[in-house]
Amino acid sequence: MERGTTTHGPASGKLAADLGRLLSPGQVRTDGPELRAALQDATGNRGITGKADALALPAGTGQVAEVLGWCYEREIPVTVRGGGTGLAGGAVPDGGIVISLELLDKVRAFDPECWRIEVEAGVRTSTVHRLALENGLLFPPDPGASEQSAIGGNIATNAGGPHAFKYGVTGNWVTGVEAVVPPGEVLVSGGPLRKDVAGLDLTDLMIGSEGTLGIVTSAWLRLVPAPEERAVVVAFYADARAGGGAITEIMGSGLQPSALEFLDRGALESSLGSFPSDAPEVAGFAVIAETDGSAGEVERSTGELVEAMSDLALSPPTTINDRAAIRRFWNWRDGVSIAVTAQRGGKISEDVVVPVEHLADAIEETVEIGNRHDLPACSWGHAGDGNLHSSFLVDLSDEDQIRRANEAAGEVFSMAIRMGGSISGEHGIGSLKTAYVEQALGPVALRLQSEIKRSFDPKLLLNPGKKIPLP
Amino acid sequence: MERGTTTHGPASGKLAADLGRLLSPGQVRTDGPELRAALQDATGNRGITGKADALALPAGTGQVAEVLGWCYEREIPVTVRGGGTGLAGGAVPDGGIVISLELLDKVRAFDPECWRIEVEAGVRTSTVHRLALENGLLFPPDPGASEQSAIGGNIATNAGGPHAFKYGVTGNWVTGVEAVVPPGEVLVSGGPLRKDVAGLDLTDLMIGSEGTLGIVTSAWLRLVPAPEERAVVVAFYADARAGGGAITEIMGSGLQPSALEFLDRGALESSLGSFPSDAPEVAGFAVIAETDGSAGEVERSTGELVEAMSDLALSPPTTINDRAAIRRFWNWRDGVSIAVTAQRGGKISEDVVVPVEHLADAIEETVEIGNRHDLPACSWGHAGDGNLHSSFLVDLSDEDQIRRANEAAGEVFSMAIRMGGSISGEHGIGSLKTAYVEQALGPVALRLQSEIKRSFDPKLLLNPGKKIPLP
Repeated sequence: MERGTTTHGPASGKLAADLGRLLSPGQVRTDGPELRAALQDATGNRGITGKADALALPAGTGQVAEVLGWCYEREIPVTVRGGGTGLAGGAVPDGGIVISLELLDKVRAFDPECWRIEVEAGVRTSTVHRLALENGLLFPPDPGASEQSAIGGNIATNAGGPHAFKYGVTGNWVTGVEAVVPPGEVLVSGGPLRKDVAGLDLTDLMIGSEGTLGIVTSAWLRLVPAPEERAVVVAFYADARAGGGAITEIMGSGLQPSALEFLDRGALESSLGSFPSDAPEVAGFAVIAETDGSAGEVERSTGELVEAMSDLALSPPTTINDRAAIRRFWNWRDGVSIAVTAQRGGKISEDVVVPVEHLADAIEETVEIGNRHDLPACSWGHAGDGNLHSSFLVDLSDEDQIRRANEAAGEVFSMAIRMGGSISGEHGIGSLKTAYVEQALGPVALRLQSEIKRSFDPKLLLNPGKKIPLP
Repeated sequence: MERGTTTHGPASGKLAADLGRLLSPGQVRTDGPELRAALQDATGNRGITGKADALALPAGTGQVAEVLGWCYEREIPVTVRGGGTGLAGGAVPDGGIVISLELLDKVRAFDPECWRIEVEAGVRTSTVHRLALENGLLFPPDPGASEQSAIGGNIATNAGGPHAFKYGVTGNWVTGVEAVVPPGEVLVSGGPLRKDVAGLDLTDLMIGSEGTLGIVTSAWLRLVPAPEERAVVVAFYADARAGGGAITEIMGSGLQPSALEFLDRGALESSLGSFPSDAPEVAGFAVIAETDGSAGEVERSTGELVEAMSDLALSPPTTINDRAAIRRFWNWRDGVSIAVTAQRGGKISEDVVVPVEHLADAIEETVEIGNRHDLPACSWGHAGDGNLHSSFLVDLSDEDQIRRANEAAGEVFSMAIRMGGSISGEHGIGSLKTAYVEQALGPVALRLQSEIKRSFDPKLLLNPGKKIPLP
C-alpha cells in the first residue's frame, strides 16, 4: 500500500487545503499531536504505528459522505477511527486519510419506554451504559475500555466483554445502522424495529466488518430492563483442570450466570496482589461467576453457584454482593490486562476462541507454547464463551522477544483452529491477524468475503489490508 | 421465468433420468402427490401454486452439492423446501427443480453440557425443542407451525414466534451454518462457538436469505438452561387504545416478559369461543403476557404483571400457571390463525412490523383499510415486537374479494413503511412481497443486496423471483 502515503509533502498540503474547503479548516489536521494519536490504537503498546496524510473530523453523516466521496474519487485510502481502544490494529492507518468520528456524538433518540436508543457512532459506550441505567435499563455489552471506546468501534469489531456470556455480543443489541458506503452514499439498514426480515441482513454484515465495507455513522440499540441485583462468586483452584471442572459443574447446574470468567496461574500472579476481596496468596486458577436478577433470584442462584463451585475449590468460594464491592471487583477484573503487561512492560496478547470443552487444553497449551519460545505466558478471559486472551510477556525493547512472541501467537492461532475454534472472539482481525484468516475460514468463505468486499468497495480503499485478505 | 418450466414433457423425462443417475431413482419424483405437494407452501390456502419439473430428495450435504452443481451447469432454477409451512410463497417453485431437505434429518452432535446442538436442515423445530427440554435446556424460537416446520426453513426465514420478545428470533440462536453455494461448493460459516469475528458475518447473511444465496444443510444452535416455571397473564380491554396503554405499562414496569402478545376485536370474535380459561363473551382487545424463571421469580413477576395490566382492563386479569393449562393456552393461541381463516374460508394475512408505540395505530388502521375495501379485517401478534398479523377475511372462490384483499395488503405495507416499520417481521418476503421491497429498503440497500445476490449466485438460479427484486 503506497497510495497517498506521503506525509507532510507538498501533495499533503494541497490535500489538506482541499479537505479544509470541503469541511472547515478546523476539521482537518495534517500534523500535531492529534494526527500522531490517530496513527495508533491500543496496539501502540506493541510498537504498532501507522501513517496518514491527514486526519478529518467530519461533524455529521453528510460530511462523512462528502469526505468519503472526495477520497473515493481521488483513490485515497480511508481508515475510520472511533475511541482508539482497538487491540488488533484495525484503526491503524496505512496511508491516506483517517476519518475520526468523535464529532458524531449525538444521542439522536432515546425512548426508554420502548427500550431503545439511537446514538451516533462517536458516542462513548459508557454514555450509553449511563443513560440506560438512569432510566432503569441495561445496555449489556461491556468491552474492556468502555469509558473510552465508542459505539461505532464496538460495532465495527462486534465487541464482547464479560457479560456477553448471558447477553451476547454488541451485534445482538444493534437493530439498525446508518452507514456511509462508497462512492459516498448513505445506507440505512434496519432501524428501531426489533424484528425485520424485509431484506438480506446488511446490518449484521456491517457489524464486525472493521471499516472495510462502509463507515457506520449511527446505530439503533436495543435495551432491556436492568436487573435489580447482582452478585459475584469467586473460587480458586489448584490448576486449569480443576477450574475447568468447576466451569462444567456451573454449566450443568441449570443456572445461567450473567458472566463466567477465568484467570490462570500467570494472570493471577500478576493481579492477585490487588484483588479487592479475600484471596489466597497463590493459586493456579480462578473462576468468577456473576448472577443477576431480582433480589430473591440472586440470593437463590448465588447459593447454587457456591455449591457448584465448591467441590474442586482450594477453599470455600467468596461471594461479593455489595454494589460498591462488585464495582471494585469489576474494576480489578478490567485491570488484569494492564497488570499482566506490567510484568515485563509489554505483552503480545490474542483473543482466540475454542469450544468450551477445550478451554483447559487451550489454557495449558498457551503456557507450553510460551515455554517453547522461552516466554512467560498466561491467559484469562470469558470462560463460558471459550474465549481466552492468550498472552506472552515481553520487554518491548527486545526485538528478539517480540519476534518469538509473534511466532508464539501464530501457534496459538493454529491451536485454536485445530480445536475447532476461531482466531478472534471479540477484538477483530485488524492488520495483525489477516495472514491467518485464510487458514481460519477456508477457500469458499474467503472467496465470498472477497466478493462482498468488492461489492461494497470496488476500489478497495476502505481500511486496506485489514480483516479480509484479498488475493 | 420460463427456463426449465416444461412439466411432464420429454425434456422432463430426460432430466429425471439424469437426476436419478446422480442420486438414485427413488430420490427423484417427476409426478405424483409428493411433487404436487412440493408446488405449494402454507400459502396454498391463498390459491398459490407453483410449477416444477422434478422434486429431488438428496440424502446428505454431498448430494445437495451434486444436485446444485448439476442444475447450475445446466442453468436450471432451484427452489429449496423445508417443512412447507412458509407464509410468503418462499418455497413455491417457479420452474426447474425443487430440492427437499427432508432426508437431511440427522442430529449431528448434541452436547447438552455445552448448551448446543448441531442438526441438519430437515430436522423438525419440535424435535430440537423436545431434545433440549429432555436435557433441561431450551431452544427458544417457537414459530407457529413448529411440529411441521424444519430448522432449515426457520433459518431461511429467520423465523420468530411469541417468545422472540424475550429471547430473540431464530438467528439469535444460530452460531454457525453449513451451506451449499453455487456452483456446488460447501460453505462452512461459524460453528459451535458462541463468539467469532474472524470473518464477515456470512452466517447472519445466510439467515433470512430465503434460499436465494445458498442451501443451508446444517446448523449449530445455541441452547440455554430451561426456566423452571412459567405463568401466563391474560387481560381484556375495551379497545386497542386501552390495550396499548396496558402494553406501555408492562414495558415500563421493569419486568421482561417472555412473551407479550395481543389480539384485536376481530381476532377475538373468531377465537374467544374456544378460549381455554375465563373470558368475557365479547371484548375489544386482549393482552397476553408470559413470564418465566425460577418458581419464586415467576410468582413475584406474575403479581407485578397483574398489577400493570389491571388499571385499564375490563375485569381483573386471569393468571394461568398450571403447566397443562399453559400448554392448552398456547395451543389455543397457535390456533388463532386457523380460527380467523374459518370465518370466511380464507384470509390474506401479512406480518408487518411497526415501532411499538405505533402498534395501536396500525391495528386501528388495518380495520379502516379493510372497511375501505369492504372486507372484515383484524390483527393479532407479537405486541412487544410491534409485529402484527394484519388480516383480511375472504371467500377464496370470490376473485373480487381476493383482488380487494391484495390491494388492502398493499396499503398495509405502505402503512408500515410510513410508520417507520417493515413489510415483514418473521414470515419473509417470498414471492408475495417482492414488489414492495424497493419501497421498503430504498435504492442503496437494494443495490448492495443485488450485488451480494450476484456474488453468491451469478446465474440467478437460486429461488428466482423471491426476496430480492433484481433490476
